[in-house]
Amino acid sequence: MRPTLKNTQKLTPREIRALIRKGKWDEPTAGLAMGYAQANLVILPQKYAFDFLLFCQRNPKPCPLLEVLEPGEFRTKFLSSDADIRTDIPRYNVFRKGKLQSTVKEIRNIWKRDFVTFLLGCSFSFEEAMLRSKIPVRHIEENRNVPMFITNIPCKSAGVFHGPMVVTMRPIPPEKIARSVQITSRYASVHGAPIHIGDATVIGVKNLRKPDFGDPVTIKKGEIPVFWACGVTPQAVVMEAKPDLCITHAPGHMFVSDLLNEELAIL
Amino acid sequence: MRPTLKNTQKLTPREIRALIRKGKWDEPTAGLAMGYAQANLVILPQKYAFDFLLFCQRNPKPCPLLEVLEPGEFRTKFLSSDADIRTDIPRYNVFRKGKLQSTVKEIRNIWKRDFVTFLLGCSFSFEEAMLRSKIPVRHIEENRNVPMFITNIPCKSAGVFHGPMVVTMRPIPPEKIARSVQITSRYASVHGAPIHIGDATVIGVKNLRKPDFGDPVTIKKGEIPVFWACGVTPQAVVMEAKPDLCITHAPGHMFVSDLLNEELAIL
Repeated sequence: MRPTLKNTQKLTPREIRALIRKGKWDEPTAGLAMGYAQANLVILPQKYAFDFLLFCQRNPKPCPLLEVLEPGEFRTKFLSSDADIRTDIPRYNVFRKGKLQSTVKEIRNIWKRDFVTFLLGCSFSFEEAMLRSKIPVRHIEENRNVPMFITNIPCKSAGVFHGPMVVTMRPIPPEKIARSVQITSRYASVHGAPIHIGDATVIGVKNLRKPDFGDPVTIKKGEIPVFWACGVTPQAVVMEAKPDLCITHAPGHMFVSDLLNEELAIL
Repeated sequence: MRPTLKNTQKLTPREIRALIRKGKWDEPTAGLAMGYAQANLVILPQKYAFDFLLFCQRNPKPCPLLEVLEPGEFRTKFLSSDADIRTDIPRYNVFRKGKLQSTVKEIRNIWKRDFVTFLLGCSFSFEEAMLRSKIPVRHIEENRNVPMFITNIPCKSAGVFHGPMVVTMRPIPPEKIARSVQITSRYASVHGAPIHIGDATVIGVKNLRKPDFGDPVTIKKGEIPVFWACGVTPQAVVMEAKPDLCITHAPGHMFVSDLLNEELAIL
């Protein structure tokens, strides 16, 4: 039987990673293993690793680190005990000098002993918490990709890495804004509290109907646009620095971890 | 007039750093610039920097990073705009191969271009918040150093750095424990919530009257020992790894930053 979202949905993270490892699942991971944290992937040669780790330390909202592996290490230790980072992600993007070179289903053949793996939190985790609290998540309702915007807020630079913060936008009814701040504040390791609420032009976003990435969503009458730091930021920043090599997950094709979203909550 | 705690207490962090820079203050910094965050200092040659940064990323409770400078950089950017890390700390400890070699008032003469500076949060910040909430801080009441214990809780190792977590202990009346958890949870970047509450033997601490560092304090009838991760942990871990060179602040002689404790609070 071919795995589909329907018959895969109930699988554990371990079972999903096994399917992916065998090449039987190469589709997006949204909706899989609900309740478990999914992670963004960035792999860089060691010579860039200190700068990138420092960039993440200085910009925890767009770059919330869940796990960093030692140079050459391809097995996770904290996000799962049986994962192989070279095979357990459905699709990888391979960039050379900042340009997408190929999209592949495993990277064992190009793995090098000086590769350093970074796994970063993903907003799936807090969106689940928002839905549980009956806060609308419009792009899920409308079955679209979240709208993302490049802001005029500079990240704090580190070594070769610098660039503007990218944000996601979710329109929220006024009476639910305080609650959505509270809920996402609990998830500091997956972007945390909003970085801006209201007038988009203040952060350099001119047209909410024309996101830089993702899809536009409906903003209903009276709803306020609320902006969260976005995991596209580190990827954009890395691409801008044009490293010899960088491997990321393909958009939406995330690492499915054994960590419960609830374990990420700080309060 | 010779600066004393009394006539120095009202000075701003900038004024205090200027005094220190001129060699006019080489005493402990507790009680100075109340309301402003003070920081622990660790300086390491670049070859150890990635491992140590990774160690801090993996162990945020004992090693809460407030700022990390680029290799060779001696001016802080985020904790203050005018500080020189080579002169603005009252006393430095210089370690070679893990052994204390000297205690000095400035390090300009031994500064090298590959030095990486780490500034870590300090429990002074949350103790001030506890006092404001009428939670007793026994070692302050008894005018002693906080009692510190080496636990059986292993830190997550990173590269050459590994070792047990060191904790501080504060005895708290039962009815104030929940509040002390809430208050310190707000200060995730200065050790955050307790790591253990109650029976000390569970974390390998045999005798609360015999701390490994600092002084014993009175535990009143009915009070529960509450344990927080301690900034001595990273220093102990670095010493254990015996790097060629490591420079730290001398105990109690901290970096006084321009950051308000309140700015560190996450909620």
